[in-house]
Amino acid sequence: MPVTGSTSDIQAFALFAEFVAKEAGETIRRAIVMEKSFDLKSSVVDLVTETDKAVETFIINSLKERYPDHQFIGEESVAGGLKVSLTDAPTWIIDPIDGTTNFVHTFPYVAVSIGLSINKELVAGIIYHVMADEMYTAVVGQGAFCNGLPIKVTHATTLQGSLVITEVGAARDPLRMDCFYKNFKAVLSTNAHGIRALGSAALNLCMVAKGAGDINYEYGIHCWDVAAGSIIVREAGGYVCDPTGGDFDQMARRVVAGATKEITKELCGILSHPDLERD
Amino acid sequence: MPVTGSTSDIQAFALFAEFVAKEAGETIRRAIVMEKSFDLKSSVVDLVTETDKAVETFIINSLKERYPDHQFIGEESVAGGLKVSLTDAPTWIIDPIDGTTNFVHTFPYVAVSIGLSINKELVAGIIYHVMADEMYTAVVGQGAFCNGLPIKVTHATTLQGSLVITEVGAARDPLRMDCFYKNFKAVLSTNAHGIRALGSAALNLCMVAKGAGDINYEYGIHCWDVAAGSIIVREAGGYVCDPTGGDFDQMARRVVAGATKEITKELCGILSHPDLERD
Repeated sequence: MPVTGSTSDIQAFALFAEFVAKEAGETIRRAIVMEKSFDLKSSVVDLVTETDKAVETFIINSLKERYPDHQFIGEESVAGGLKVSLTDAPTWIIDPIDGTTNFVHTFPYVAVSIGLSINKELVAGIIYHVMADEMYTAVVGQGAFCNGLPIKVTHATTLQGSLVITEVGAARDPLRMDCFYKNFKAVLSTNAHGIRALGSAALNLCMVAKGAGDINYEYGIHCWDVAAGSIIVREAGGYVCDPTGGDFDQMARRVVAGATKEITKELCGILSHPDLERD
Repeated sequence: MPVTGSTSDIQAFALFAEFVAKEAGETIRRAIVMEKSFDLKSSVVDLVTETDKAVETFIINSLKERYPDHQFIGEESVAGGLKVSLTDAPTWIIDPIDGTTNFVHTFPYVAVSIGLSINKELVAGIIYHVMADEMYTAVVGQGAFCNGLPIKVTHATTLQGSLVITEVGAARDPLRMDCFYKNFKAVLSTNAHGIRALGSAALNLCMVAKGAGDINYEYGIHCWDVAAGSIIVREAGGYVCDPTGGDFDQMARRVVAGATKEITKELCGILSHPDLERD
């Protein structure tokens, strides 16, 4: 079957990925209550477990068996040395456990995140919030859903009175941390109602998509953390861009995703950007 | 019936409070999906809604009808001008919606928190995590439970590698914020795995009690935010104290609650304390 990238093709791809994400989630749900050991990646607070690797292998093998011509970018495959390479081919961008630190600590916010890119454009996103049994899905042009029900962003147009979501992340070097504190202070100075941090970039984006938060910004994330979430926010009516205000670049390791263009641009106007190596 | 403060009396009180908390939770669950207006209290980011007031009235009236000799300290009654007065009498300490900002924003972490104090000692705690339908309960000496199943803290003895939970809170004055950032930096400098912020002091304590986080610290909270949670953490095997390392004082508007005495004392050793007016 030739890959046309038609809506019905993409819907079929997304439906199968949803099925795979749910299966992966059951493995994670069983594993989260057990004793977990972990290895370190980019820093002493960047963790990976055997479950991350096993779940990624399961997801890639399941998708590959059905779609042998598709390409794959998986967090743990990349950590294992595979180069990130986004071509025009249908490419699945996978985070087997978004929120690995939460997983290690049994903090109940972990997600399976699967994005699909065709011609380098994100066309579908599937995020499974494992412990809440919530399946967030979006196909380009078709809206965003949680467990089959449509979700929408809020109407917030200003940071004043908004609920903002962000994370410290896994970097601890002084320049990155300086930026983190600068941005945190800039947000609070707007009289935003508060800042929340759940420890999962994918779920943070789902919170914005479902209108449970007004805006989310992240630095230091990778394409697999935000591929699915960015299209879910857009299909829920939100605005996703680069923190400089330019187009969202899923390889740039940074994102702002807000309920409206107005609030998103306001946040972009006050953020400081750390230097980040591209994916 | 004379109030003896015996375990079986306290268990009966707690069971009734659990029933009331669940009823209150249903009101909150219905109200959270509606458009909400709010008033301001101590600052432009300290919110209260009609639902907070209605739910508090419901809880106090329900308990008062059954226990006419008992005393009450409720967040919204105090905000309405009633003085906080903790006597030796059985006293219910009530936060009708812990996480009002979350409630206003539909961020799904809101709790009903009901503590019971007799002879100025906390003897029971009930926290209902409304959107997850999780009922956390503890009676002094009887252990802690979530939906009837026993819960336990983690074994973490050091901040290194731990998951820490805290909040920005509702204050924005420069001295308080300086302390906040100092403490945030001090925690991250230990190579703690991460910091999480759910926006509900009561649920943050439940996370520690169930072993989903290793330690929680808060400044600027009130007795109703932590009365129930502090006994739930203790009954789950955790250690609760004042951030100075001294005895926990529920009127001092600050708390550290950790999985073990060791991690709690380590955190107390690195925290800076803002000046706070007592409850």
